[in-house]
Amino acid sequence: MKRKYLMTPGPTPVPSFIREALSREIIHHRTDEFIEILKEVNEGLKYVFCTQNPVITFASSGTGAMEASVSNFFSFNDKVICIVGGKFGERWFEIAKAFGLNPVVMEVKDGESPSIDELEKLLKENKDTKGILTTLTETSTATVFDIEGISKLTKEKDILLIVDAISGLCQDVLLTDEWGVDVVVSGSQKGFMLPPGLSFISISKKAEIFLKNSNLPKYYFDLNKALKSYAKNDTPFTPAIGLIIALKDAISYIKQEGIGNLWEKFKKLASATRSAAVALGLEVFSKRPSNSVTAILPPQGMLSKDIVKKMRKEYGISIAAGQGELENKIFRIAHMGWINEQDLIMCFSILEKVLKDLGYKFKLGSSLVALQEEFYK
Amino acid sequence: MKRKYLMTPGPTPVPSFIREALSREIIHHRTDEFIEILKEVNEGLKYVFCTQNPVITFASSGTGAMEASVSNFFSFNDKVICIVGGKFGERWFEIAKAFGLNPVVMEVKDGESPSIDELEKLLKENKDTKGILTTLTETSTATVFDIEGISKLTKEKDILLIVDAISGLCQDVLLTDEWGVDVVVSGSQKGFMLPPGLSFISISKKAEIFLKNSNLPKYYFDLNKALKSYAKNDTPFTPAIGLIIALKDAISYIKQEGIGNLWEKFKKLASATRSAAVALGLEVFSKRPSNSVTAILPPQGMLSKDIVKKMRKEYGISIAAGQGELENKIFRIAHMGWINEQDLIMCFSILEKVLKDLGYKFKLGSSLVALQEEFYK
Repeated sequence: MKRKYLMTPGPTPVPSFIREALSREIIHHRTDEFIEILKEVNEGLKYVFCTQNPVITFASSGTGAMEASVSNFFSFNDKVICIVGGKFGERWFEIAKAFGLNPVVMEVKDGESPSIDELEKLLKENKDTKGILTTLTETSTATVFDIEGISKLTKEKDILLIVDAISGLCQDVLLTDEWGVDVVVSGSQKGFMLPPGLSFISISKKAEIFLKNSNLPKYYFDLNKALKSYAKNDTPFTPAIGLIIALKDAISYIKQEGIGNLWEKFKKLASATRSAAVALGLEVFSKRPSNSVTAILPPQGMLSKDIVKKMRKEYGISIAAGQGELENKIFRIAHMGWINEQDLIMCFSILEKVLKDLGYKFKLGSSLVALQEEFYK
Repeated sequence: MKRKYLMTPGPTPVPSFIREALSREIIHHRTDEFIEILKEVNEGLKYVFCTQNPVITFASSGTGAMEASVSNFFSFNDKVICIVGGKFGERWFEIAKAFGLNPVVMEVKDGESPSIDELEKLLKENKDTKGILTTLTETSTATVFDIEGISKLTKEKDILLIVDAISGLCQDVLLTDEWGVDVVVSGSQKGFMLPPGLSFISISKKAEIFLKNSNLPKYYFDLNKALKSYAKNDTPFTPAIGLIIALKDAISYIKQEGIGNLWEKFKKLASATRSAAVALGLEVFSKRPSNSVTAILPPQGMLSKDIVKKMRKEYGISIAAGQGELENKIFRIAHMGWINEQDLIMCFSILEKVLKDLGYKFKLGSSLVALQEEFYK
């Protein structure tokens, strides 16, 4: 039995205080006790999402809340722009297709952020656009998109800006209300440090108007019903009680740390991770790297999967290979949720061992010194 | 702080061996280790569902799998018969409406099982019926429906029989394959003794044909995608890893006990519960009482909510009042999942105290003796 370390961009390590909460006796959800918990969670989610608007919690993985963003705000044949710069942008397109919308794809090169000028042009060519579906942190390429820039194109218009922040929330800055983002989607297994099983969706006033006009079929993810229950700190269907109880403690932690401080912390971890890669003579993949996860190119002639497999099999450390076409072109190290400086030191120390074993030449310890220099300056 | 006892029909108490499993460190879902767990869970679910067909697991509450049963097997305007004998039958109707089907309601009096003759007549009047949506255990009235009888009307026909067994599974007999039930839906927080957050759906060969012909929009609950992943012991989206790991242990327990023995056990608990009610001079509500939960009429002139509230507030024991129109007409005591004989002794002992405090006249201890006589014979 190997001691395990989770350095993947979701699920992320679940701290022991959360695991303790998950092991408590279950309580009934139609009680004053649970209503109090839900009330605190609902308030806390507003803090984390940087919004004054409601944030609904579903028992589902993040994709459920992505579906809710499509099926609740649009109608059959509505035109939406899906910004596709990786696997999770593609998911927006798939959902929009599945629900009979008319999605226009804006392709973005892997590792790049969408060009605001191009998007503006695309909007001009498609004056009937009802929404833009995009991603804060495209996990598959470890890239953070310029959501603030995009929001300037939609803020004063009848266009919804819908952002998948499943991976990015808590690490990459997202000023939902200040920027005017209408709908933000997230999940429990990244910045919130919980096991997967909860998804979240924030709903702006503008989005509530779209909600009233939508004619697409929905039931489990129906936000009309959800908002009605939300007003009473209740849920339309049995909530994932155990996860919500643990979420309360996770939010307490985030509030105590302060969301601004967390952004700073992960900015530093991300910057140090990139320095460590460069110190090893490796290249960072993304042109606009996220603070949640870093994608690194393996040394010439080496396959990502060999590095990833060796780290997992021989040292119990889970990092991620690329997804789809990028499978062997990058490997990804997460710095989100409960992951800290010490974890990165440990991870790079083993990465050095693995690269050495695979025949790569570099100065032993160079990535560790690079990390230390950023951490201890 | 009061010591708490959960005697409600979901959530049910989570045993300590499951709570221990929930508190373990999280593992990544794209690993051999998790694939092995999912494989064992998938096989185990077949055993519990009494089927050789696939049983898909979603991260959602039971209603999610109910939605999946509608959106995956039918098309716009398809005629289905919804058997409505309580709150959960109504839910079938609501979902069918939401997805644009043409639902015909067969109303069943609260506490009764649908008449097979009437249903047969209804089918003759509606020859274009594509499916029957019904309930194994209508929790709101504590009634078990004659699914075997219904299945005889659909087995040899091009009509899908879809059964919500969210509350009933593990307590009320359901011979999925033997009877020819096409789709069975369940959830994690009843017979499986887990917190809520997982839903299940079994899919017969006949249902797979309907799946191919369905044109309704779906994405998160798309069974085509789910079945493709299932074949590799994988899931299309991030699964609720923690709950699935705990489910493995819950299924181990169920297998060890034996599903047939569990049915016998809960039959005895249910029968004893009814005897205890009668011994107190009270009436059992259902004409075809379930082995999962018992609904009892309060003494003349007394409101269910007063009994339920007093039990919870003064003694920490959660039982359930009625739902909707039945709110004050019945109270419900669960015997499912981890609940055992001792729990019922404890529950009725306090029920006697509460009834006495509320001014009801009866012989103290009479319900306890009635329980003991059934338990120890």
